[in-house]
This record gives sequence, structure tokens and C-alpha cells, in this order.
Amino acid sequence: MARIPATALRGFVARGPRITTAAFRQTGLYYSTMRAARYWGKEDIRIEQIPIPALAPAFVGICGTDLHEYMGGPNFCPTTPHGVTGETIPVTLGHEFSGIITEIGSDVKGFEIGQPCTVQPTIFCGHCVACAAHAENVCHDGGFVGLSGGGGGLSEAVCVSATHVFPLPQNLTLEMGALVEPIAVSWHAVSAAPEIGADTVALVLGGGPIGLAAILCLKAKGVKNIIVSEVATSRQNFARQFGASAIVNPATEDVKQLILDATNGKGADVVFDCAGVPASIKSACEAVKTKGTVVNVAIWEKEIPFNPNLITFKESVYKSVLGYDRKDYEAVIENMRIGAIEAEQMITRKIKLENIVEDGIKTLINDKNNHVKILVDINDK
Amino acid sequence: MARIPATALRGFVARGPRITTAAFRQTGLYYSTMRAARYWGKEDIRIEQIPIPALAPAFVGICGTDLHEYMGGPNFCPTTPHGVTGETIPVTLGHEFSGIITEIGSDVKGFEIGQPCTVQPTIFCGHCVACAAHAENVCHDGGFVGLSGGGGGLSEAVCVSATHVFPLPQNLTLEMGALVEPIAVSWHAVSAAPEIGADTVALVLGGGPIGLAAILCLKAKGVKNIIVSEVATSRQNFARQFGASAIVNPATEDVKQLILDATNGKGADVVFDCAGVPASIKSACEAVKTKGTVVNVAIWEKEIPFNPNLITFKESVYKSVLGYDRKDYEAVIENMRIGAIEAEQMITRKIKLENIVEDGIKTLINDKNNHVKILVDINDK
Repeated sequence: MARIPATALRGFVARGPRITTAAFRQTGLYYSTMRAARYWGKEDIRIEQIPIPALAPAFVGICGTDLHEYMGGPNFCPTTPHGVTGETIPVTLGHEFSGIITEIGSDVKGFEIGQPCTVQPTIFCGHCVACAAHAENVCHDGGFVGLSGGGGGLSEAVCVSATHVFPLPQNLTLEMGALVEPIAVSWHAVSAAPEIGADTVALVLGGGPIGLAAILCLKAKGVKNIIVSEVATSRQNFARQFGASAIVNPATEDVKQLILDATNGKGADVVFDCAGVPASIKSACEAVKTKGTVVNVAIWEKEIPFNPNLITFKESVYKSVLGYDRKDYEAVIENMRIGAIEAEQMITRKIKLENIVEDGIKTLINDKNNHVKILVDINDK
Repeated sequence: MARIPATALRGFVARGPRITTAAFRQTGLYYSTMRAARYWGKEDIRIEQIPIPALAPAFVGICGTDLHEYMGGPNFCPTTPHGVTGETIPVTLGHEFSGIITEIGSDVKGFEIGQPCTVQPTIFCGHCVACAAHAENVCHDGGFVGLSGGGGGLSEAVCVSATHVFPLPQNLTLEMGALVEPIAVSWHAVSAAPEIGADTVALVLGGGPIGLAAILCLKAKGVKNIIVSEVATSRQNFARQFGASAIVNPATEDVKQLILDATNGKGADVVFDCAGVPASIKSACEAVKTKGTVVNVAIWEKEIPFNPNLITFKESVYKSVLGYDRKDYEAVIENMRIGAIEAEQMITRKIKLENIVEDGIKTLINDKNNHVKILVDINDK
């Protein structure tokens, strides 16, 4: 087994200063290899033997970001040396993952070999103005394990900072552990809304994985009126199953008018844009109430038409959020533990690492509406 | 003199239910006439003799909104019966005004004949969801005295709700009273920023009247770093004179880079978009710091290109504000009284009512950069 630095966990965890694959490279301690899904560029993902850095991933979710890299990247994946990891493609993919601790750095306390964990894959520099403001999720040089170098979940071993590893409670399976990351994205978004509770009327635009996870998070926060706007019938069905109180089809119905009708002309207290298309930003701003909040959870591909008057004449607020922090991870894990977030229904398929492209990425591209989350089972060989 | 309802002030003020010109019409009590600047439509403003409703305006500012009505309207001015006033054009103009109380409704307490006052010209319905949320400034049927019917300051008499009339402190002139309205717009905007104080770095985009008034308000709130972005040299000079700590020319300089350089790479704590052009929304979102706030004070003419990613990757907030409430009026009057807001420098010309188009509106259209606020002196005949 490769030796790991004093501050690292083999498998997963290092406490203290961040450890990246770049740091491991400097140690020159690799002496064994493993299988990993590596991103070489657009439509080029290869399962390769690479040096072992550390911990053993178990289950790994495939994210929309992975699809975007595959279809139209590199976007997130670095083509010039990443500011923190120093790496360029090929990089190992997989940023939504659980795993088992296999080795612990000598300075690390509070973890045990064999412990099932989930990882917050945030990569940050620690010294930019965002990091200085404790906003690691928007670090100027930031990134993600599994996209920006530093290894990834789609491999047999990875080494990550102990500060970003969360042991799983006894009643959470490793499959559920792999779902914490995407749900944390939605939890972070839902937590950005100023007023969330039993009386809140929430509108969720888009019934993809993040929109569906937003339903779970809103339910966990006690929201009863959760209206979901989604075109695809299968995603509408997922939304109902996940707990939406009403469904709107923006292709055939007037979202603004339906929301106004449902709220005595008031509008939605908060709107979550999990769709990120020109029609959704307009619907969001039209449907939100006077002095309400629109939370953008989408990443946009380009400039879109926008008329600020839509919110000016209501003095509404447009917020945009990204990623998560450890409070979000802690909250999601705790809500999953007590059963307030029923995450398992997100899993629509489990596949082998070798089949990541055909059974995972291409399935999600070609049949996205019939899937929520496809997990790669690293141990299914 | 025409009789006024029990709840009205002749000249200015009515307490209790809102009194509009429509209400006066119903009483059929008009028996004398006065001169007033009336808006009939695009490029058609006439000084006419109309029935006297109530109080005597003294000074009246000309606003950018008046110019927009003149050049390209009707926009605000109603062409179908206004939801509150029931009026259509022609309507009397003038929503930035001071005046003297000449008659007081029998139910009104706390005012005296001869008292110099300023008016908050907000028209609101009192029963929509915005009004129910005490957000009269964004009433769904809202408007302004001087734009939406209900008379206007550009006349020899007007009747307004006593709840929206503010007596002027002894050391404030009637000229200064006419400046409260535009400064209240900027005060409302500045008050929408979460952190304003001695350490704040504020960026103001646009050196027109609202941008210049924003400088005065920021100074009154103790802000020392006030950077103004403005193309026109004369407006840059006004900005310096009003208290800007630095000037940026967005036509020749890189606003984002200059702000980053001035803040050790951090960005502005808050950006006020008082320009309302595609370049300004982009500059605002680029120059604001991580988790900072952009406050839009502009009214937009149409959809513009916008990339939400500009704020997503910083988790910044885009807020949009409109008008003011009585707290803003109270704060502006008090800050003017103690000298924290030096408003008089805004006045660049005083003209006669008869010359409103040539000396007022056309001057502001053709020579806008050399003027801040032109006041109409109603008593200069």
C-alpha cells in the first residue's frame, strides 16, 4: 500500500492542510495502481490503471456537470494547470461519492479504518478573498475533487482532506452516502431563501435531479406547498412521487397565472430556478411575490435576455447560489438520518465502473427524463 | 375657493382615506380655475386653466420620468382609466414638489394653514397584496400624483392625502423641499444594501440625478469610499463636487479591473446601478464582491443580455428597488435638516411654469449633462 502523508486518510481523509494529488505527486510515494474513469476531453472518458493515492470509493453518482464535460467540455476540467491541484486533463471523474476509509494520516484524529463516509469534494485555495470570507464554495481558484484534479470518486482509491469527510450514521447505506452531495446543492439553495416554513409557497422550476432534491429539502423544512414546473411527463411523475403538491407544465400552461391563481394573486414566496433556460428566469421573476426571492441554482451556458423591470416593480430579490458548505452536508446527513429526507428514491440504476459511458453517461444524455441518479458501484467488477 | 372634503388639505393634505381628483370630480364642487402643466401625450404638454382642487405648490422638480413621457410616452401616464385615480390623459404633471397648505379638511389634525411642506406623491390602492404587505411603493395599481392623475405639482393647487405630507423643518427652504422626492429614491436604494458604513466600498454606476443623490445619501451614512462610473465629463465633475472619492470612465477604463485593484482584489461591497444600460448591469455584477449586493435603481426600457453566472460564481445578490416609503422621506428630511445631506447643490436652474417645455424639458433632453435638477417656480409669473 502506498504511504500517505501524515495529514491524510488513505481512502478518504486527511485532517489539517489540504492534500491534493499534486502533493502526492511531490512525495513520489505511488507504488501501486488502480482502475479509474479518467476524463481526457470531449467524448473521451477512459478506464485506466493509475497510481493509488488513498481511500476506497464505494458508490459514485453521475452529475449533469459530468455530462456537460463529456458532451461539450472541457469546461470545469482544467486544460491549464489548476490553481490548487496543479493538474490538467486527464483527471479522474466522480465528485458525488461515498467510500470506506482504508488508511489514516498520522495527524488525523476521530476516524477509523473501515468507517463508511461521504466526501464534500470542495477544492479551495484557502487564501483568496472568498476563502478569507469563509466562502470556500466560491473560492476564486476553487474546484471539485473529481473534476479539477486531486483524484475522483470514480476510482478504487482517492485521498481527500479529513476536514471534508463526514462519517455516515449507522442507518445510512453507502448508496445513500453518495446522494449527500447533490442533495447538499439543493439544501444550500433552499437555505438561501429568507422565509421557509409551513406557510411558504415554493415554486421549483425544473424537475431534474437538483429540482427533485429541492422538493426533498423543502419537505424536510416543513414546506407543504411545493409547485413544480416541468415539461417532461416522466419528470412530472418523479416530482409527484418526491412530494410536489402541484405540477405545472410550462409548455402548455401559463406558469405565472397558475401561481397567481393558487395564491390569491400574491405570487410564490420563493422560486428556485433549477432549469436555467431563458423561459425559466422569466417565469421565476414573473411568478415570485412582491418582495419575494428568486434563487438561481442553475449554471448558465451563455447570456440570456432579461428585463430587470420584472423584479423592480415588485422589489423582489434575485440570488444566485453555488455548491454547499459543511453546514449543508451536516444538515443533509442529519435529515437523512432521521428520515426527513428520503433520498433513496433518487437512485434509478446502479452500474459498473467499466460501463460508465454506455450505461451511465449516454443513458443520462439519451434517456434523461427516465432517470434521476445513476450510481456507479465501484466494487461491482 | 372650492370646498374640500373633510379629510383633505387644500393645497396639499388629506388625512384618512385617500382623496383623488376623481373623488373631487364626484363632489362637483369646483368653481374656480388655475394654471397647470398638463400632459396630453408625446411631445404635447400644455399650460391650461383647470378646476382648482386644493393646496398651492411652490417648487417642482422635473424628473427623468417626465422626460420619458414627453419623448416617448405615454408610459406611466394612463391612457385607460387608472386603477386608483380613474383618470386618463391629459393629467397634470409634477411629482417632485413642495408647497404651502392653503386649506385643511375638517378631520385633519396636526397641520396649519401657511405651513411649508413636501409631498410623498405615492398613489396606492390600499388593498392589493403589495399594500397588504405595507409595500405601497410597489402597489399593483400604484402610481404617482403628477403622473397617474390626482393632479400634480406643476399647477397652482393640488390636493393630496395628509398621510403623505411632511412639514418642512424651519431651516429647509421650499426649494429644498422639492428635492426630497428624488433624494428619497436614492435613500431607499442605499438603504437596501445590507452593510453600509465607514468601511464600505460603494460603486455608483451613472452620474445622473439619482446617482448624484446616491452619493449624498452614502456620505450621510458615513461611507467614505464612493467610486462613481460615468462617461460625461460634466457629470464626472458634478460627482466629484457631490463627494465621490474616485471617478471611473467606463468608456475608456476597465471598471471591473479598477475596482479590483482598489480593493485588493475583493470587489465593491455594494454596487448601485443608476445607469440601467446593458454595460452597467454587466459592470455591476463583475465589480461586486463575493456575497456582495448589486442594487438596481434603474427602470429598464427592454430586455437586455444578462449572464447569471456573473453572480453565481460569487453568490452575490441582485436586488431591484422602486420608489420610497415614508421612512425614506423622514430620513431624508432629517438628514437635510442636520446638514448631513447637502441637497441645494442639485439645483442648476429655476424656471417659470410657462417655460416648462423649452427651458425645462428640452434643456434636460438636449443639455442633460450640464444639469442636475431644474425646478419650476410656480409663483414666478
